[in-house]
Amino acid sequence: MKLEEISKIVENKIRDIKDFPKEGIVFKDITTLLNDGDAFSQLIDYLKQRYENQKIDYIVGIDARGFIFGSALAYTLKCGFVPIRKKGKLPSETISKTYDLEYGSDEVHIHKDAFLNNKNANVVLIDDLLATGGTAKASCELLNELNVNIVEACFILNLTFLGSDEERLKGINTFSVVNI
Amino acid sequence: MKLEEISKIVENKIRDIKDFPKEGIVFKDITTLLNDGDAFSQLIDYLKQRYENQKIDYIVGIDARGFIFGSALAYTLKCGFVPIRKKGKLPSETISKTYDLEYGSDEVHIHKDAFLNNKNANVVLIDDLLATGGTAKASCELLNELNVNIVEACFILNLTFLGSDEERLKGINTFSVVNI
Repeated sequence: MKLEEISKIVENKIRDIKDFPKEGIVFKDITTLLNDGDAFSQLIDYLKQRYENQKIDYIVGIDARGFIFGSALAYTLKCGFVPIRKKGKLPSETISKTYDLEYGSDEVHIHKDAFLNNKNANVVLIDDLLATGGTAKASCELLNELNVNIVEACFILNLTFLGSDEERLKGINTFSVVNI
Repeated sequence: MKLEEISKIVENKIRDIKDFPKEGIVFKDITTLLNDGDAFSQLIDYLKQRYENQKIDYIVGIDARGFIFGSALAYTLKCGFVPIRKKGKLPSETISKTYDLEYGSDEVHIHKDAFLNNKNANVVLIDDLLATGGTAKASCELLNELNVNIVEACFILNLTFLGSDEERLKGINTFSVVNI
């Protein structure tokens, strides 16, 4: 399938929810995409085709919607899945990065031994949405610290009006299924 | 693959983390299972084989580790995936159930229109762990309220010393890959 075809399918299945999580924000709801087994499987098949010849060792998914796309992709590529999570969720020793939010800050964690069996692993980072890029940037910093090779950061939706990919994720190859 | 085979594979890949999330608890860490692409894909293939002839319309995954197993299973069955989430995470109108924790309470939510396109749908509920069963029981109540048919509640691990399945999830068919 071509990018323009899967892009249209995904875009048609996403719905806008006004004023979520707060007034003035139009939230892109992916649950309507997930609800449609055909559309969801076509999306994962498209991503499989994109990565299957790139010797990917791990898909790294960002908590929690990144898990949904990432684990299905890892399964079909038969590679490992590594979760990046919020503070207090991963049980073993972690490294973390703090990043700024509009108000306050947040942090992401990854298990220190996530790639212990495979140094210099090829990984694809995946999340549902690239918005300001704070979470994705901090996640890439974690991956760099663990010395793996970020083949690409992959997003289902990219809010391009919030900045260029280069501005938000400097030096990282990025790919988005739908650009908005 | 037989249940006893996949059960042994999964059990060997899980690690115990002492005193997480608090002193005295031995946490069953599934990240070491996910890290192994072969073991993870064999598990999902086993579940696929279990459900593929049962006309499953949706896999319902519980936030957040249930997403990891549930979305891969939904993908391979080509059926829809529906998330059950904590308060404040789902953007459209939800119904919710509150349940007791050891200290305080928690609540789970599901989109009111999650099964709107398919009344009387056959669903499989999935989570990584059946412990006291509070989250799973509340999730089943949500599904009953939305009038879908719970074919089975499926868990990767079941802490059977916390009670029988019937005590914890009365009237629900349950299945667990590993009983501990």
